[in-house]
Amino acid sequence: MQTLHVELGDRRYPIFIGSHLNPKTLLEPYIHGRQVMVVTNTTVKPLYLDHYVQALETLGKTVKTCVLPDGEKYKNIEHLNLIFDALLQAGFNRDCTVLALGGGVIGDMAGFASACFQRGVYFIQVPTTLLSQVDSSVGGKTGINHPLGKNMIGAFQQPQVVLADMAQLKSLPPRELSAGLSEVIKYALLGDVDFLVWLEMHMERLVAGDAELLAEAVYRSCAHKARIVANDETEKGERALLNLGHTFGHAIESYLGYGVWLHGEAVATGMVMAADLSQRMGWISLEDVERTKNIIQRANLPIKCPKIPLDEFLGYMSHDKKVLNGQLRLILMKQLGQAVITNDFDVELMKKAILNNQLS
Amino acid sequence: MQTLHVELGDRRYPIFIGSHLNPKTLLEPYIHGRQVMVVTNTTVKPLYLDHYVQALETLGKTVKTCVLPDGEKYKNIEHLNLIFDALLQAGFNRDCTVLALGGGVIGDMAGFASACFQRGVYFIQVPTTLLSQVDSSVGGKTGINHPLGKNMIGAFQQPQVVLADMAQLKSLPPRELSAGLSEVIKYALLGDVDFLVWLEMHMERLVAGDAELLAEAVYRSCAHKARIVANDETEKGERALLNLGHTFGHAIESYLGYGVWLHGEAVATGMVMAADLSQRMGWISLEDVERTKNIIQRANLPIKCPKIPLDEFLGYMSHDKKVLNGQLRLILMKQLGQAVITNDFDVELMKKAILNNQLS
Repeated sequence: MQTLHVELGDRRYPIFIGSHLNPKTLLEPYIHGRQVMVVTNTTVKPLYLDHYVQALETLGKTVKTCVLPDGEKYKNIEHLNLIFDALLQAGFNRDCTVLALGGGVIGDMAGFASACFQRGVYFIQVPTTLLSQVDSSVGGKTGINHPLGKNMIGAFQQPQVVLADMAQLKSLPPRELSAGLSEVIKYALLGDVDFLVWLEMHMERLVAGDAELLAEAVYRSCAHKARIVANDETEKGERALLNLGHTFGHAIESYLGYGVWLHGEAVATGMVMAADLSQRMGWISLEDVERTKNIIQRANLPIKCPKIPLDEFLGYMSHDKKVLNGQLRLILMKQLGQAVITNDFDVELMKKAILNNQLS
Repeated sequence: MQTLHVELGDRRYPIFIGSHLNPKTLLEPYIHGRQVMVVTNTTVKPLYLDHYVQALETLGKTVKTCVLPDGEKYKNIEHLNLIFDALLQAGFNRDCTVLALGGGVIGDMAGFASACFQRGVYFIQVPTTLLSQVDSSVGGKTGINHPLGKNMIGAFQQPQVVLADMAQLKSLPPRELSAGLSEVIKYALLGDVDFLVWLEMHMERLVAGDAELLAEAVYRSCAHKARIVANDETEKGERALLNLGHTFGHAIESYLGYGVWLHGEAVATGMVMAADLSQRMGWISLEDVERTKNIIQRANLPIKCPKIPLDEFLGYMSHDKKVLNGQLRLILMKQLGQAVITNDFDVELMKKAILNNQLS
């Protein structure tokens, strides 16, 4: 087992990464109060809920559960309210802990509920997908969607502890494992060419679910994100680098309709577009673009998106949160493994980069 | 005009207190971004909304408004969502300001919405009732009710600035002015016998709406609360003193049904019960209890509640947030003008204090 500490002053917390982790011993020091609400979904419930409930009950805790339907479309205010209902029906007070057992949606919702319930109670994350292990387990971003925008309502809420158990990835559909690897590749491309070399050595075994290699990938990804987040907790600057591929990717997701492509799939093609534009700007080489496409393909991720009319693609891009005073800013690569946030790019070249990476 | 600074480190903010304050000059330095959402209710809208919208537009801001129905019963998740709808329909981004124009309910809801929208935007408070000027304008508590409990869902969100304009109290119904004076009296009883003497000198003119004296009362009340909150922002200790009279008061409100008595009215009788119990414990004199009753009556507030069966009264008290490990804690007076939080009281004497201050 490896331990990574996210350094956020008095909100510092550990991420335990390994296989078949023991929740009883690992969670005990981090649970406040006697009341624990485990929030999970209908997919995770039959797989892992009993295991955690039993461990917590062995610790003498009063454990209640809140099981939500599975899916991004339930990440809304109505289903958030079901968590509040469960907490209040159970008579939980300020001195309780909310434990998220599931993927990114469950983490976002349970985290946000814990931030708001009685103006803030304790929060623990047990991410059960690769994506949530490498992404939402670091950074404290929680929240829900609104019909007019994703993640528009939320809070920064840091967990007490995160348990990332590779054994739980065995039950993950291969397509979701690949979508998680998309964010892993992102960390390499935005800030660590050595990690890219490592991924190039091991991608097939990662895709096959090798627990030891996955643990290392999760550790290195979380370490990257933790360093960036520690410098910029509330996203005033450097943290925007984590959105490499995301502005293009959001346009793809929005056009196709959320859920048609997985987030990681859209980000994968978005990273190809970002690399392509970076090459056209003369910052990286054609070989760098090929390496980018190659590692993405080896993770079973798409390097081209379906044909999308350019004006619609640009329209969706203009809704990006990084638009500042009407200026679109993108995360591009100044060199392979070194991303920057910039509005200093040629819009005509950007259009070529978009069109060049669509299916004909 | 007087200015009071609430000292909360990098979240330090000023409260401007006076009559006919100029929102244009006072608010300008504190508005972030170009977009301002003014949240108000149907009662305040015809009185003051245009005045603030015009001032903000003169500053070159894009001003949108969200008008909620008036009343505590609308302080729920459905009406909170109307604020999010308004923000998103107006296309507001992270760099916007939410301005609460109204009483405590509007301040709580607009403040909570500003804490959650895009994970936190800027917040300004213009409290239009005496109660909200002396209570919710200091401390950063925001939130909504849930069918199973008041203020169960919320956030700590500090404003950038508070404007407390005595001229706006002219439109306040006398009963609501008195309810605000109940909290003013509370600050005197819990921590400042000199302020009690001052109130005893001026109560009739305060009840009559003398703007200059009201401004002084607001200043002294906010200064008290600000000092306590600066020491204990998230209510781990001293801040609980602000609940003098509230545990008894909540029981009265709950039994009668919320809204039958105003909060300040229930707290007034609650403070009489707290004083009565403090005297029975031998901590304050009978004369101190008489002074307490006297100042409360002169503010046109009730010193006795309707007859409530004792077991029901105690039942409601046991739901108090200050119950810790099943132990009821009360805010009592060790001497007049000096409150303490304690579980060291005689339950039989508490019952007598409750029964003694009910109508027969």
